[in-house]
Amino acid sequence: MDIAILGAGSVGAALGRRWARTNHRIHFGVRDIESPRLRALLDEIGPAASAMTNARAAASAQVVVIATPWRATREALDSCGPLAGKTLIDCTNPLKADLSGLEDLGGESAAERIARWTPGAFVCKAFNTTGAANMASQEGYPLAPVMLVAGDDPAPKATVLRLAADAGFDPIDAGPLVVSRLLEASAMLWIHLALRQGMGSDFALALMRRNK
Amino acid sequence: MDIAILGAGSVGAALGRRWARTNHRIHFGVRDIESPRLRALLDEIGPAASAMTNARAAASAQVVVIATPWRATREALDSCGPLAGKTLIDCTNPLKADLSGLEDLGGESAAERIARWTPGAFVCKAFNTTGAANMASQEGYPLAPVMLVAGDDPAPKATVLRLAADAGFDPIDAGPLVVSRLLEASAMLWIHLALRQGMGSDFALALMRRNK
Repeated sequence: MDIAILGAGSVGAALGRRWARTNHRIHFGVRDIESPRLRALLDEIGPAASAMTNARAAASAQVVVIATPWRATREALDSCGPLAGKTLIDCTNPLKADLSGLEDLGGESAAERIARWTPGAFVCKAFNTTGAANMASQEGYPLAPVMLVAGDDPAPKATVLRLAADAGFDPIDAGPLVVSRLLEASAMLWIHLALRQGMGSDFALALMRRNK
Repeated sequence: MDIAILGAGSVGAALGRRWARTNHRIHFGVRDIESPRLRALLDEIGPAASAMTNARAAASAQVVVIATPWRATREALDSCGPLAGKTLIDCTNPLKADLSGLEDLGGESAAERIARWTPGAFVCKAFNTTGAANMASQEGYPLAPVMLVAGDDPAPKATVLRLAADAGFDPIDAGPLVVSRLLEASAMLWIHLALRQGMGSDFALALMRRNK
């Protein structure tokens, strides 16, 4: 599958690496194509990955992953050109600058706001509830970490659930896009435990089923 | 330890059963002391448990567990008499009547509201993020389910963390009481997955540390 990833920061790079290893082609949409960090990432991934403008990346793929900081997201989406009909995976969290909490979006989630900005696109929320280190690798965990996916459209959501499994997660359909409000709160809890409670980034949640 | 439990519904009964088995004495605060369901519960637990008014239960214990439905909580607390100096464990979630979401408490959590109702008490949030069946037993899970505990006062919180371990959970200090906002959202996510996503009540979250 061709996958556009907007942003090659820690989340975008981690997902790109994982998916390249499961035979997907990665099109990073970036602003600075000459950045040394980006060149190193592309060298590491090899021929499965390339970098280009957001518009070219989005045009190359059916699935567009939003791995930008929240504050840069609107501009990144605006630079993509038409997104109607595409599956958008929103990995953002609307964090305050000091990471102390989520911005007040009037009760709405970032994902719902993105859906309003991109009419005709199929927006799913995923890859926002755990840290980038857990996307890069799940080695050392006794169970596959859970990845909750929310979205209103069944076929695009099925694609996202499959991509979550390809990235090593236990994928769970969390319901419609409005549930992103709870997924963003869940992300804030992870971030709070990691940063404020001193747990660091090497912990992850598993969703266990009872074996009766 | 003497533990008062306000309410002998599914959560109160499950916690009372577990703690009685770890040598705590359980004082159920109830409205109808003659209810057949309560008598059966007391017969089952044996001499470690008894039932009485909320006021007598609260007077008998240093730890008071709030296991009432959210709508009955204010009245239950008012009927307890003085609570200053006691450790209150808030297990409630401010659910809408149809369980479709949380009531709007103006951004505040139920736990913070309870703390304002009970000046001088040490309020901790715990036992709200998973179902009563998971409090009754964790048999059949590969790892101990996590129990997140929030509270502002270290010594009372340490007691609650120990009680969470006594009830079979992996206890985690989630930080100050304000984090209850995230714990109540986390509860709503569990309830949503259980009821709306058809997952039932036999699933639980584990917090895994990476083994490097």
